[in-house]
Amino acid sequence: MRTAYHEELARFGARLGDLARLAETALGQATSALLDNDLSLARKVTADEGAITKLHHLLDAEAVTLLARQQPVAGELRTIVAGLRMSSDLDRMGAMARHVAELVELRHPDQVVPETLQPTVATMGEVARRMAARARQAMAAGDATALTRIEHDDDEMDHLEAMLRRQVTHGVPRPNLDTAMDLALLGRYYQRFGDHAVSLAKRVAFLAGVPPQPART
Amino acid sequence: MRTAYHEELARFGARLGDLARLAETALGQATSALLDNDLSLARKVTADEGAITKLHHLLDAEAVTLLARQQPVAGELRTIVAGLRMSSDLDRMGAMARHVAELVELRHPDQVVPETLQPTVATMGEVARRMAARARQAMAAGDATALTRIEHDDDEMDHLEAMLRRQVTHGVPRPNLDTAMDLALLGRYYQRFGDHAVSLAKRVAFLAGVPPQPART
Repeated sequence: MRTAYHEELARFGARLGDLARLAETALGQATSALLDNDLSLARKVTADEGAITKLHHLLDAEAVTLLARQQPVAGELRTIVAGLRMSSDLDRMGAMARHVAELVELRHPDQVVPETLQPTVATMGEVARRMAARARQAMAAGDATALTRIEHDDDEMDHLEAMLRRQVTHGVPRPNLDTAMDLALLGRYYQRFGDHAVSLAKRVAFLAGVPPQPART
Repeated sequence: MRTAYHEELARFGARLGDLARLAETALGQATSALLDNDLSLARKVTADEGAITKLHHLLDAEAVTLLARQQPVAGELRTIVAGLRMSSDLDRMGAMARHVAELVELRHPDQVVPETLQPTVATMGEVARRMAARARQAMAAGDATALTRIEHDDDEMDHLEAMLRRQVTHGVPRPNLDTAMDLALLGRYYQRFGDHAVSLAKRVAFLAGVPPQPART
C-alpha cells in the first residue's frame, strides 16, 4: 500500500518532468517561429499548448488524489504542494510560449521583430530556453545549487529586456508604434517565462533543504 | 479536535478574504496614483505590496499545516487546495497593482498616460477594481453565479485593451515610442489583473459545484 503510494508519487514527479520538457520545447519553437517568421511552426506551438494545459490539470487532479489517499508524511506533503506550484509555473511558461507564437500568427506575413532587433530577441530566446532546461534538470536531480545559475540567467534576461527597450526607442530605423507595443509585450513574455524558471528552481531548493525527506521522489 | 480544525479552516478562509481586499485596494490606489500622477500614493502601493506577499506566504504555510494536521475529508481537501490557488491569484493581482505603481514612480514627474488616453485607462481601472470586488464577494458567499458577471467584465476589459491600443497607434497626438511601450505593458497589467479575478470566480464555482461540502468554510 505504502509502496503503491510511493510509486504514484514517483509518477507524479516524472509527469512534472514531462511538463517541464513540453514548456521548454514550446518556448524554443515559439522563438524559432518568431525569428524565421514561420507561420506553421507558430500554429504548431499554439495547438500544442492544449497538451500542456491538459497535463497541468491532470497533475492537479493527481496531487489532490495523492493528498487524499492516505496521510502523507511532512516531506511528502511538501513535495506534493510544491508539485502543485511547479505545475502552475510550467503551465504559465507554456502560456508565454503561446503568446509569442500568437504574435507571429497575428502579424503574419509581417515580421514581429525588425531585422536590427533580431539578435537581441534571439539571445532572449536562448537564455529563456536555457533557464527552462536548467530548471527541468534541477527538478529531476533535486539539485538546489541550480538556483544560483538560473538567477544569474535571470539577471541577464533583465539586462536584455532593458537593452531591447533602448534599441526600440533609440535605434535606427525607428519602428512604428504597433511594432514598439508588440516588442514591449514580447520582452515581457520572455521575462515572465524566466521568472517562472526561477520560481521552479526556488521550489527545488526549498525541498532540498528540508531534511530528512529527499527533494524529489 | 475536529472543531478546532474547522475553526482553523474558517480562519484560513477569512484571511483569504483579507488578501482579496488588500489586492483590490492596491489596484484602486495604483490607478489613482497613475491618473493623478501621485508619486506618494504610488510609493505607498509599492511599499504595501510587502504585506500582500507576506499574507500570501502565511496562507501557504497555513494550508500545509491544515493538510498535515489530520486527514481532511474530500471537500475540505478541495477547499484547501483551491485556497492555495486563490492565494496565488491574489498575490499576482497585488503584483500587477505594484507594476502600475512602479511605472508611475519610474516616469515621474512625467505622466505615464497622455491626457487623451486617460478616460480609457480610468475605465480599465474601474473594471479591474469591480472584478476584484466581485471576486472577493463571491469568495465570501461561495457564490458560483458571480462567474458569469466577472466573465462579462473580462470581455469588457479585453475590449478596452484593444481600444487603448488603437488609440495609441491611431490617435492624435501620436505618443512617442517610450510612452507606447509603457501603455502596452499597462494594458497587459490590467488585463492580467482581470484574468486572475476570473480565475478566482472559477475556483469558487468549482467548489460550489462539489456536493456535499459547502463552497467555503
